[in-house]
Amino acid sequence: MSKNHHRKKLRHSHRRRVPPGTEPGTLTSNPSDPLPELMQTIYSREAIREFAWQSPTQLQSRQVSSEIEWINLEGVGNAQAVQSVGNRFGLHLLAMEDVVNPHQRPKFDDYQDHLFLILRMPVALTSEVEPHERRFQFEQVALAFGRQFVVTFQEFPGDTFDSVRKRLRSENSLVRTRGSDYLVYSLLDSVVDAYFPILEHYGELVEELEVKVVERPTANHILQIHALKRDLLSIRRALWPMRDLLAAMSRDDSPLITDATRLYLRDCHDHTIQLLDMVETYREIATGLIDVHLSSVSNRLSEVMKVLTIIATIFIPLTFISGIYGMNFDTEAGPWNMPELKSPYGYVSVLVVMALIATGLVAWFYQRGWLGQNVSNEE
Amino acid sequence: MSKNHHRKKLRHSHRRRVPPGTEPGTLTSNPSDPLPELMQTIYSREAIREFAWQSPTQLQSRQVSSEIEWINLEGVGNAQAVQSVGNRFGLHLLAMEDVVNPHQRPKFDDYQDHLFLILRMPVALTSEVEPHERRFQFEQVALAFGRQFVVTFQEFPGDTFDSVRKRLRSENSLVRTRGSDYLVYSLLDSVVDAYFPILEHYGELVEELEVKVVERPTANHILQIHALKRDLLSIRRALWPMRDLLAAMSRDDSPLITDATRLYLRDCHDHTIQLLDMVETYREIATGLIDVHLSSVSNRLSEVMKVLTIIATIFIPLTFISGIYGMNFDTEAGPWNMPELKSPYGYVSVLVVMALIATGLVAWFYQRGWLGQNVSNEE
Amino acid sequence: MSKNHHRKKLRHSHRRRVPPGTEPGTLTSNPSDPLPELMQTIYSREAIREFAWQSPTQLQSRQVSSEIEWINLEGVGNAQAVQSVGNRFGLHLLAMEDVVNPHQRPKFDDYQDHLFLILRMPVALTSEVEPHERRFQFEQVALAFGRQFVVTFQEFPGDTFDSVRKRLRSENSLVRTRGSDYLVYSLLDSVVDAYFPILEHYGELVEELEVKVVERPTANHILQIHALKRDLLSIRRALWPMRDLLAAMSRDDSPLITDATRLYLRDCHDHTIQLLDMVETYREIATGLIDVHLSSVSNRLSEVMKVLTIIATIFIPLTFISGIYGMNFDTEAGPWNMPELKSPYGYVSVLVVMALIATGLVAWFYQRGWLGQNVSNEE
Amino acid sequence: MSKNHHRKKLRHSHRRRVPPGTEPGTLTSNPSDPLPELMQTIYSREAIREFAWQSPTQLQSRQVSSEIEWINLEGVGNAQAVQSVGNRFGLHLLAMEDVVNPHQRPKFDDYQDHLFLILRMPVALTSEVEPHERRFQFEQVALAFGRQFVVTFQEFPGDTFDSVRKRLRSENSLVRTRGSDYLVYSLLDSVVDAYFPILEHYGELVEELEVKVVERPTANHILQIHALKRDLLSIRRALWPMRDLLAAMSRDDSPLITDATRLYLRDCHDHTIQLLDMVETYREIATGLIDVHLSSVSNRLSEVMKVLTIIATIFIPLTFISGIYGMNFDTEAGPWNMPELKSPYGYVSVLVVMALIATGLVAWFYQRGWLGQNVSNEE
Amino acid sequence: MSKNHHRKKLRHSHRRRVPPGTEPGTLTSNPSDPLPELMQTIYSREAIREFAWQSPTQLQSRQVSSEIEWINLEGVGNAQAVQSVGNRFGLHLLAMEDVVNPHQRPKFDDYQDHLFLILRMPVALTSEVEPHERRFQFEQVALAFGRQFVVTFQEFPGDTFDSVRKRLRSENSLVRTRGSDYLVYSLLDSVVDAYFPILEHYGELVEELEVKVVERPTANHILQIHALKRDLLSIRRALWPMRDLLAAMSRDDSPLITDATRLYLRDCHDHTIQLLDMVETYREIATGLIDVHLSSVSNRLSEVMKVLTIIATIFIPLTFISGIYGMNFDTEAGPWNMPELKSPYGYVSVLVVMALIATGLVAWFYQRGWLGQNVSNEE
Repeated sequence: MSKNHHRKKLRHSHRRRVPPGTEPGTLTSNPSDPLPELMQTIYSREAIREFAWQSPTQLQSRQVSSEIEWINLEGVGNAQAVQSVGNRFGLHLLAMEDVVNPHQRPKFDDYQDHLFLILRMPVALTSEVEPHERRFQFEQVALAFGRQFVVTFQEFPGDTFDSVRKRLRSENSLVRTRGSDYLVYSLLDSVVDAYFPILEHYGELVEELEVKVVERPTANHILQIHALKRDLLSIRRALWPMRDLLAAMSRDDSPLITDATRLYLRDCHDHTIQLLDMVETYREIATGLIDVHLSSVSNRLSEVMKVLTIIATIFIPLTFISGIYGMNFDTEAGPWNMPELKSPYGYVSVLVVMALIATGLVAWFYQRGWLGQNVSNEE
Repeated sequence: MSKNHHRKKLRHSHRRRVPPGTEPGTLTSNPSDPLPELMQTIYSREAIREFAWQSPTQLQSRQVSSEIEWINLEGVGNAQAVQSVGNRFGLHLLAMEDVVNPHQRPKFDDYQDHLFLILRMPVALTSEVEPHERRFQFEQVALAFGRQFVVTFQEFPGDTFDSVRKRLRSENSLVRTRGSDYLVYSLLDSVVDAYFPILEHYGELVEELEVKVVERPTANHILQIHALKRDLLSIRRALWPMRDLLAAMSRDDSPLITDATRLYLRDCHDHTIQLLDMVETYREIATGLIDVHLSSVSNRLSEVMKVLTIIATIFIPLTFISGIYGMNFDTEAGPWNMPELKSPYGYVSVLVVMALIATGLVAWFYQRGWLGQNVSNEE
Repeated sequence: MSKNHHRKKLRHSHRRRVPPGTEPGTLTSNPSDPLPELMQTIYSREAIREFAWQSPTQLQSRQVSSEIEWINLEGVGNAQAVQSVGNRFGLHLLAMEDVVNPHQRPKFDDYQDHLFLILRMPVALTSEVEPHERRFQFEQVALAFGRQFVVTFQEFPGDTFDSVRKRLRSENSLVRTRGSDYLVYSLLDSVVDAYFPILEHYGELVEELEVKVVERPTANHILQIHALKRDLLSIRRALWPMRDLLAAMSRDDSPLITDATRLYLRDCHDHTIQLLDMVETYREIATGLIDVHLSSVSNRLSEVMKVLTIIATIFIPLTFISGIYGMNFDTEAGPWNMPELKSPYGYVSVLVVMALIATGLVAWFYQRGWLGQNVSNEE
Repeated sequence: MSKNHHRKKLRHSHRRRVPPGTEPGTLTSNPSDPLPELMQTIYSREAIREFAWQSPTQLQSRQVSSEIEWINLEGVGNAQAVQSVGNRFGLHLLAMEDVVNPHQRPKFDDYQDHLFLILRMPVALTSEVEPHERRFQFEQVALAFGRQFVVTFQEFPGDTFDSVRKRLRSENSLVRTRGSDYLVYSLLDSVVDAYFPILEHYGELVEELEVKVVERPTANHILQIHALKRDLLSIRRALWPMRDLLAAMSRDDSPLITDATRLYLRDCHDHTIQLLDMVETYREIATGLIDVHLSSVSNRLSEVMKVLTIIATIFIPLTFISGIYGMNFDTEAGPWNMPELKSPYGYVSVLVVMALIATGLVAWFYQRGWLGQNVSNEE
Repeated sequence: MSKNHHRKKLRHSHRRRVPPGTEPGTLTSNPSDPLPELMQTIYSREAIREFAWQSPTQLQSRQVSSEIEWINLEGVGNAQAVQSVGNRFGLHLLAMEDVVNPHQRPKFDDYQDHLFLILRMPVALTSEVEPHERRFQFEQVALAFGRQFVVTFQEFPGDTFDSVRKRLRSENSLVRTRGSDYLVYSLLDSVVDAYFPILEHYGELVEELEVKVVERPTANHILQIHALKRDLLSIRRALWPMRDLLAAMSRDDSPLITDATRLYLRDCHDHTIQLLDMVETYREIATGLIDVHLSSVSNRLSEVMKVLTIIATIFIPLTFISGIYGMNFDTEAGPWNMPELKSPYGYVSVLVVMALIATGLVAWFYQRGWLGQNVSNEE
């Protein structure tokens, strides 16, 4: 069951909801998808009002033009709700389409009067997973903002912006006193920050595998390394465009982003570079572990073969000698027919010869360093 | 037969029709190739007229200068027909040459009064194919457009732009109300969209192979991985220049493309990047699978050798001992000649010694972890 | 002999004729090298005159200033002849030096009043070659041109520009009616076109190797793959700078190249990109084939070991049992000394026991899937 | 214990002190961390004054505006102290945050009135480490400077800028006579210089491993190569952004850096490139060593198998022959039942046949080059 | 001894003479190092004067301002001498430091009134070296020049610019009639030319290894390939920055370099690209050879195992049968006890059965293609 679950998830992540040939900008609604949860936050330097709605029609208007409005929408299955929120702020049709069809690549689009972002956020899976399964899931977060508004569309229910919300409530926090672009930065920062615990987990996994592969490699480890590399690949695939996006935002000349916020975005950009550094480092170490693994499998095979060779090489000649004297030539037929059999010291002599051969072979093996060396694994 | 078919197809895809040394711009006609099927669509915001012709001479003229004319030509074997359509719109000789010689690399040429595109579109093969054969075929689609016309040249018969045609017929669709550049975008979008089901198929293949290689790797899997990588390579080779082409179009300063359409082209460009991301991901996973496969083959060899070594190491010494007592030394010749043979407990003693040796060896193997470990494949 | 020939050729291709420390621009003449063959073509829109000379002193002058003069020189061993032709058109000393010393990297130099190109052209070898030998040879073609003249210097005798010459003779061909830059393009195009049959040959080789390695891999295949990769490497090394050269020419702002010709050069540039695409594809497939080969060698080894293990594992215990009853313990010495030997059913019992052991082992092998699986190579 | 220590260290190096979701610019203080040690140096061309303080409140002011003030802070655990020093010079909040949270990526931020640098400095570990453990530790050094001040924040106690301090004390050193930017260069130079002994150590390690792997490869070497590559990876990860940082500084148009100093920074930039060159070289050699190791393991296995094959192939047929004549067919039952047993020269003939067979096999092995070749390892 | 020598050399090449923390621009003199040899050449279009001095104080002044002065200094151990020459022309302190500390990376510094170059020149070792040792040594050549002077600092004694000197002496050579920049080009050209024979040597080595590995691979070859790759790596490390340096010089807008000379520098730049091409080609072929080697080692192992398997598989069952009839069951005890022993044709029948079994097995091996195939190594 676990295996099937895993396969379903992987395939899922590249699905496109729209059938090929659909007119761009068409929002295909899935009637079975429930209405999204809406959280509306209207704040200014002086006050903050928070609402939770069931339908876009309930949304309140701002009262003062200096107020900033943040609408957070959880669950994008219901295209009508998404479109109605989008229309409220005049969002572009292509942007709406990207919101409704998750699994887009992170990107940054400048539609003059509003800017639009697609982000990917890792959400840790709480349920038990097998060692070679992914321990997190990606959630698409779309974000559009203009001078006085910010809209966030989360793919799945479950609030992930709680920390930002908390800061908004405290009167003298930076986020309250600055414009919508700073709120956007705070949200971006919390998305980027979500990667750190995930990557720390993979860092620990790499170290554990490193110790295990060194101590006692099994066939299972190669699968775990493969799964690790595949997961890091998917993280890199999500982070790489996020890095470009943040670079583009901090360079963009849109009047919607102030210079002060650009400094913060640059800081966030630095974090994505640091994350990508970690991903690359883990990937290179994992690749190196495959070499270590293959080499240790070869070494073990070498060791097995040495045992066989030592045993066989010692006993095969001895068995041959005993075979010689097991032949039934008639000693009566002539003096050349196995006279040793009749010698009173024949048996003892043969045993001595055998012992000498065995000793010689053991000495030869010892001199070639075949005895003991690989077993202790010491240098 | 299937193998030959496959080889023919591959070789075919790099063929150049023109013999080296031919004057550029020469359209070598193959008289045995049938006339292409022509579909002419003349539309404006108000009306749409559709025609199917057998010969370029039948083509209608536009009646109003605001009308846009789209000619779709299926089958490019007949150079005369292609040239006559090209002359109608004053297409450049080099462009015509590229239309008639398929297997060009996707590209974008700006001939001032008209723009010219070469695209590659994957067409799924419906016939049964072997596991290591390509499941799709590339079709070259050439596209030229000016302010009031669009011409598409398809390499093979069989309409692939049906979805665009349907949208054109609906009066309030975007494609009817906008210029020729938006029609071009719609066609481009449907070409790019055709890659998604193909890549989803390969995504499933990767997952299936992942499960199979992990569970029970066979020599056949490595061939399937190789075929998979080769096919992904050919897809990347087609997509990479399409991505560049779309980037060039959305940056190009030609007056034939409006700013509004540029936004849509950028979206289409994002899709090619997403497709290339998928290709790279599958390729890297497939490359990792080869490591997994090699490692599991090594492991199985190791396991086979262990069985041999255990059996041989236990029985070779025992056989040697039995050989000793099969020797025919004359016990009468002296007291040192195999007195054990005459001892009443000789046989039993030897059996006991043999049992002790076997037990000792089994214990030694057990202590080294050679028994059972690899068989269960568990960590 | 064939091997020596091969080694000589490879080494040759990196030779520099000038000893280190020679003054740049020195043309060291090799007196034993024969005079080059000279072909002079003077043409205008109206007329064309062709001459074949033995010495540069015989060269004719143009009669009308609108005439274009093309001199083709075959064989660059005689430095005096090269220099005398170079002086006729005021070619730069460094350019002359590059002509006389073949095995230069393709490049494009703009000497203001004339442009200078070094090209590499593959010439198929007609003689029989071994499977791992290169089937073609590179010939250096140097080309210099100004407004009214084109000079081509071919490393070896043997005309390779025949197709261009033919087109020049036909009165209404493009090449007759346009300037010297279009003639240059035609020559460049015929050089680039010469790569297509060579690469098609390697494409077929890749496919053949693919089929062979899959069906029955031998040690020889790895050598053939290695040779294939090495040859493709040398083709890439020649094509890569040709691509840069064509890009530079089509971007260059020299008044010697008209905008109309630039379009044609861009087309030629596209062909080099397509050729490089093919080279890269074949190289990647060849690299993948090495994995397939290594994996199939491992599999065969595994199979060999399995046969040995099965035979040995079945017969070693049986032989041990027969050895037991071949021991010569005196059954008279006591009731415990091999009483089985005297039992009337002893022999039959032992045979039955042996049959049971053999059957048990075969069943165990069967259950582990060791019997038959790898032999059929089927999934 | 050593292993645990190692794992803790590795994990440590990617830790972020701030929990995800914390407001940017928040300096979380760890009350158990002791106050940092402060070293204040105020110097001008004429004089220099040095102080060591326990608390930021004790810091002296400059007396003349031409004086330059350098404050060095060791230990960044106490956020209050860091902030109080930062406020003294008006450092940006984000810069302060980066100081307090070590393990940042090296970077260069231009805050107009002051420039801010994050550096990573390797500190050799004096304690004994295992062969596969890292022999150094990274220390984060943050550096901020304006026209008349330089502040350095060192992660751990222990002065590493002693050499710069010494030069400052000598009246006619360059660092005394130039501005704050030259002091910054001197500090940067000493950070970059600290990499040279570390890399020299790894250079020696590479050479030692090269000799060892060639002479007698053990399973342990592959682990040492893996550890070496991992450490070089972490050095590259630190140096790469330092190189970018120095390139950015020497290109930056900030008035805080004079042109004269830019020349020095360029020199320092060249050193980082040289260091990265060394890192890459060692990494490539280490990667090559893995091939050498794998190949030598294969060779040894081949050698072991040869010994087994030679011994078994010689003795198995001989043993079979002796087995034949050990059969107990009744020679009395008929003339065809083993008449050899009764022949007076039977035994001798069999021995001669055996000797011939053995000699033949040895000759065959010799002719195939199986005897002696691999043992001597000579070409 | 040879091994130690090798290790010393390698380590040497990364040494920095200055201890970390030394003030930049400090020239630490080694008093035991002898004074350098000085060669002073003063030339103009009309005349040339050459001097050899023991001390910088002996240097002559130019008599006419149009004269160009070239000072060549061999051996840079004596810092005082270097500094005194440097001061004569006002060279920058950092440049002097780079001269005295060899093993710098090649670079190009523009100090306005003079340009400064660091070059690496390969010097072939004349002494005997082992197959896996480097056959050449790098010498650092520093070069500074202004309008009327050129200074060259060679790391080791031994004149390497003899060919340039010879050309200077001939009155009508280009180098006499042009400025100091052309002399610099001539020197640069002779440094770059010194790489050609070295690389040709490695080209021959690659070909020899190719033939050897194909014909009879030994464990030693992998070491030679490894050494080859390591040496090519060090050549690439020297050439890569030289290429950048030449590109920078030919683009640089310094008035010290004339346009005419820039053409020559571009030619020299082309040579470095060609050299790097050769290095990359050899490296890729060497990497491919490792695959060939590994595959041939696997093949030989396979062959060894086949011999063992064939011998063992044929004789083990036969030996078992002979063992059966060597059992001592008492034929008198009952009719079922080995009645074959008493049959007059028992022995012959058993021999026939054995022959049939052996023939059958040989036929089976033949049918599987195990006999002869790999031995001949033919396809």
